[in-house]
Amino acid sequence: MSVSRRDAILGGAVAVGGAVALTAKEAIAAQDAGKPRAWEPTYSGQPLDAKPERPGEPGKDYKPVVTPNGAALPFKVVNGVKVFHLIAEEVDHEFAPGLKAKCWGYNGRVHGPTIEAVEGDRVRIYVTNKLPAARTTIHWHGIFTPSGMDGVGGLNQATIKPKETFRYEFTLRQNGTFMYHSHHDEMTQMALGMMGLFVIHPRKPSADYRVDRDFAMLLSEWSIRAGAARPDPNEMTDFNVLTINAKAFPSTSPLIVKRGERVRFRFGNLSATDHHPMHLHGHHFKVVATDGGQMHIAGQIPEATVLVPVGSTRDVEFIADNPGDWALHCHMTHHIMNQMGHGFPNTTGMDASGVDENVRKLVPGYMTMGQHGMADMADMKMDVPQNSIPMLGAKGPFETITMGGMFTILKVRDKLESYDKDPGWYKNPPGTVASLATAEELKRDGIP
Amino acid sequence: MSVSRRDAILGGAVAVGGAVALTAKEAIAAQDAGKPRAWEPTYSGQPLDAKPERPGEPGKDYKPVVTPNGAALPFKVVNGVKVFHLIAEEVDHEFAPGLKAKCWGYNGRVHGPTIEAVEGDRVRIYVTNKLPAARTTIHWHGIFTPSGMDGVGGLNQATIKPKETFRYEFTLRQNGTFMYHSHHDEMTQMALGMMGLFVIHPRKPSADYRVDRDFAMLLSEWSIRAGAARPDPNEMTDFNVLTINAKAFPSTSPLIVKRGERVRFRFGNLSATDHHPMHLHGHHFKVVATDGGQMHIAGQIPEATVLVPVGSTRDVEFIADNPGDWALHCHMTHHIMNQMGHGFPNTTGMDASGVDENVRKLVPGYMTMGQHGMADMADMKMDVPQNSIPMLGAKGPFETITMGGMFTILKVRDKLESYDKDPGWYKNPPGTVASLATAEELKRDGIP
Amino acid sequence: MSVSRRDAILGGAVAVGGAVALTAKEAIAAQDAGKPRAWEPTYSGQPLDAKPERPGEPGKDYKPVVTPNGAALPFKVVNGVKVFHLIAEEVDHEFAPGLKAKCWGYNGRVHGPTIEAVEGDRVRIYVTNKLPAARTTIHWHGIFTPSGMDGVGGLNQATIKPKETFRYEFTLRQNGTFMYHSHHDEMTQMALGMMGLFVIHPRKPSADYRVDRDFAMLLSEWSIRAGAARPDPNEMTDFNVLTINAKAFPSTSPLIVKRGERVRFRFGNLSATDHHPMHLHGHHFKVVATDGGQMHIAGQIPEATVLVPVGSTRDVEFIADNPGDWALHCHMTHHIMNQMGHGFPNTTGMDASGVDENVRKLVPGYMTMGQHGMADMADMKMDVPQNSIPMLGAKGPFETITMGGMFTILKVRDKLESYDKDPGWYKNPPGTVASLATAEELKRDGIP
Repeated sequence: MSVSRRDAILGGAVAVGGAVALTAKEAIAAQDAGKPRAWEPTYSGQPLDAKPERPGEPGKDYKPVVTPNGAALPFKVVNGVKVFHLIAEEVDHEFAPGLKAKCWGYNGRVHGPTIEAVEGDRVRIYVTNKLPAARTTIHWHGIFTPSGMDGVGGLNQATIKPKETFRYEFTLRQNGTFMYHSHHDEMTQMALGMMGLFVIHPRKPSADYRVDRDFAMLLSEWSIRAGAARPDPNEMTDFNVLTINAKAFPSTSPLIVKRGERVRFRFGNLSATDHHPMHLHGHHFKVVATDGGQMHIAGQIPEATVLVPVGSTRDVEFIADNPGDWALHCHMTHHIMNQMGHGFPNTTGMDASGVDENVRKLVPGYMTMGQHGMADMADMKMDVPQNSIPMLGAKGPFETITMGGMFTILKVRDKLESYDKDPGWYKNPPGTVASLATAEELKRDGIP
Repeated sequence: MSVSRRDAILGGAVAVGGAVALTAKEAIAAQDAGKPRAWEPTYSGQPLDAKPERPGEPGKDYKPVVTPNGAALPFKVVNGVKVFHLIAEEVDHEFAPGLKAKCWGYNGRVHGPTIEAVEGDRVRIYVTNKLPAARTTIHWHGIFTPSGMDGVGGLNQATIKPKETFRYEFTLRQNGTFMYHSHHDEMTQMALGMMGLFVIHPRKPSADYRVDRDFAMLLSEWSIRAGAARPDPNEMTDFNVLTINAKAFPSTSPLIVKRGERVRFRFGNLSATDHHPMHLHGHHFKVVATDGGQMHIAGQIPEATVLVPVGSTRDVEFIADNPGDWALHCHMTHHIMNQMGHGFPNTTGMDASGVDENVRKLVPGYMTMGQHGMADMADMKMDVPQNSIPMLGAKGPFETITMGGMFTILKVRDKLESYDKDPGWYKNPPGTVASLATAEELKRDGIP
Repeated sequence: MSVSRRDAILGGAVAVGGAVALTAKEAIAAQDAGKPRAWEPTYSGQPLDAKPERPGEPGKDYKPVVTPNGAALPFKVVNGVKVFHLIAEEVDHEFAPGLKAKCWGYNGRVHGPTIEAVEGDRVRIYVTNKLPAARTTIHWHGIFTPSGMDGVGGLNQATIKPKETFRYEFTLRQNGTFMYHSHHDEMTQMALGMMGLFVIHPRKPSADYRVDRDFAMLLSEWSIRAGAARPDPNEMTDFNVLTINAKAFPSTSPLIVKRGERVRFRFGNLSATDHHPMHLHGHHFKVVATDGGQMHIAGQIPEATVLVPVGSTRDVEFIADNPGDWALHCHMTHHIMNQMGHGFPNTTGMDASGVDENVRKLVPGYMTMGQHGMADMADMKMDVPQNSIPMLGAKGPFETITMGGMFTILKVRDKLESYDKDPGWYKNPPGTVASLATAEELKRDGIP
């Protein structure tokens, strides 16, 4: 059976446990007529003994997603099975220029490369543990596997010891946006970076239903003390480095689309603690799917900000009809900062020069947050402590963009040379930029 | 075009990027028939070149919302354009009697006044920066503007320097509940109060669809140490002052409605960190819209508690059919307290008198949380440290209401003298108040 | 009227406030035709003067839910009224072997027993306060009561003094999953455990719509310092003991179901701060209801992880068609740990022996988190500080399951002796367990 079973259930009756389940249409009709509620089963995808399909090919069977700052995990086909190889290892990773740390990732990358496949594929994933001294496993989040392939150490399998290579194998019985991550000592291993995206494309994509641009973004949070060599996995609430695909602005690649295109963002969140509210400027979108499947079209949720809970994925879609440079970012205000010094007195409005001198005796290179707020630090270009990044920012078309962390830019253009070439900054039509009011305007409108 | 384009799309086919998009009706029918999923576009409102409409007038074209403890921003009409003036400045603000701080707001208010307009209006908003030494901008959260009017400092515009006045201008192409806030050095400026609500009414309100009472509430959180003159913008997780429209109970105005009325709450959340779960007693409501638009009627979510994520708005609606005094509050238990002392030993159940004396040597006026919990402090009427508020409470009909922070009361009455006059406490019909069980009852029901 | 009024409204027109409200069917049709939005009222259940029904009987009128590690509150019937008795008192509670604390609960239990009843029942709940010195009340979260029975101390009633017994009485006018908890000094009393579940079954359950297994789980979080006798109610963000029905893994009872059964999880969350994202392995489910009522069938949300906000309930349903042992847990990574030592240097990758010795001088029995991460502590079987639990784990079929806290296991079996007998660990079919790759496989697939 190649059509997703879930779609079939919505269209036809299925016998479950002896009773007949109504179709969605019948169920809705019954509910509207005031009848007691009818059952609509949630079936975990294809039967366990589903026959694998021919391995789907990129370009032919699916259009690969774009993982900004990331890459797809390559595969080879052996006897009709897609074979992947993940190597868990320590990786020197740069979050943004000036901020590096020893993290744990896969195949030389943090986070791990995106796994892409097609519903019906049989996949075989070898996992080699090259971590220094720690055991590990991989859980395939949201994916229906046999119990022994589910990856919870001790419960579903023995853990993978250093130097060992394990084999995971299962047939994909669903499509959507999923993730993979260590499920042994998660607090430590995930905090150090051991996670990646797992996108499964539908077997028969609809001719009517297609997106033009499809971006996959994995959100996470880190605690890296100034001068530290590694992230601190014990931190539960106080994170100072926030990332999209393990990059902090200004290192986050912009998302480049043509005006009028249908765009999809696939967000995954494997942070330790924070449910990130991802806000897009200039457009609204609809939340169309989670890692649990697609919403019924009437149940899609219109949003300007999608809350992506910890341990969830969210697919959102929209038409990019508003040309310009649009911020896309976590709306938690500390999450668009980098490397803040905490715990020092609030000097906004005060003269902090004395404080700085005293503190520098303890912490060489220390500088208090700006007495006028944070942003002027970016323009001061001071020496920063070793292995910190300047607190904020990147050069923008008007001034420094005083952002960092979980922040990127959606660039919508009428014409594009190529999706892989940054088109530079948007050229605003005359009269459409907020700017100094002229004396005549103020006088005409009676503004003092 | 005066009808919201989004409604039209739901009703008719629209050509997008060459392919024909199905109507919602067609899409639902296709999905129910088991066909692969059809596309339903999300269009960012009216075309960019939409002709402005006649400026909508309060009373005639729309019924203004109630902003409890707040106000609407006045405007004037100049040549068919609605002209507003926001002045960003330092404001001495009182959260509740006994708790004041120097905040940053607009036009002498914290938070800024509510901007109200009508879909199709052309608005021109002058923003004057009277902050001490900090630059600023304003972002119109959820609102479709030209890229140059979107307000991200450095990216969309130069920042507004102290003493400068900038002009923002755009045609409103949507309706719903939105917000405005600084988008320069947000961590600092928003933590100090620089935010407000922006409500856009539909151009042609439905005769069938109307609410009788419409309340707009902006949620935020502050860190104000006992004795401090200002909020601390560096605080990321530990907030001790929680507010609705910048007021903490008992200073939050009650929401007064007549029994049987249709009521709408528009919540906005521009807190630094916390997604606030707003719980209403005595009624359920439906979540009908976000800052991304209205849900399809079948997609509305019934709730007793609406989670309002950071950087989001939520409109909820219900019929106030249960007469009485009903708590409406954030369900995070620390958010209905005021001005707690943290960091001291847990003395519940212990004799803390020795602790108090020792601590008072360091912090004059200090008092440990009650050895029997928090609430007895309210009844003790002790002297409190300068610029703190008594930890909890207000006189209630039965005893002290030991609440604070993000807490208010919905008062539902059969008859009301006026919406602007507090009707006092609810008179419970006989036999409907929880009270001491009588000896006869206990005996009859076999309760020891 | 015995049929839920809400269902009737969906099926028939209701006059509200003079205007006629459309049926859901008419409203949807109108919306799809592009008409302006029609009103769909949310009615707070049965009228206030609804006649009580015959008291529903377990087995006959409803199938009781399973409260893992919990119990139902017994009742007696007196003159057609269901009489319950809750005793608020201090309880010595064990979270898991080795971790006990003096908590506050009901009837000798933490949390309080589950109250179960049927829509239409008249309930009379006596509440006796046996707490040491603290006053208290009970609020019936999500339940429509007269204002005077709503339980907010000071506002709706006088507080219940120590030794007093109060009487609450009201007719149940709705069905679903609700909660009860103290609403006086909540920050303290709820943090110490004073909460429970309140499940109301429909009066006429549908023949078509039934679940086979129905589990009720109350989520909460605690701060218990190593060696402490009580939870610390002042803690706002840093919780180290996370529980389902007040138990931490490995003390959480597994959820045992037969393959193919329809399963419902009812989650409630009365934590102080955290919205818990509850993730189920091996299956997806649909979110079908909240404490505000049931979603329209088209509005149900498919998920692999359901975010349960503070002060909310969530009902999810699925068919357990994937046999095996499936983790069900909060995805916040620190929430599947127990009793962590915070505040010590991050020794992952370092030699921490010197640190341990120095610290033990201060804190007898101290041990740094493993230099190789957390999990090896579980296998070391070291002496632990008094009143701590070994940081992680339970013996699993392969190795130690290094989890704790808000974690349990769903066991799906083809055959079951009984629901009350743990079936042991799943026997994986050959070839379905992730394990060491053989030399031949590696060679055939070209894996180094």
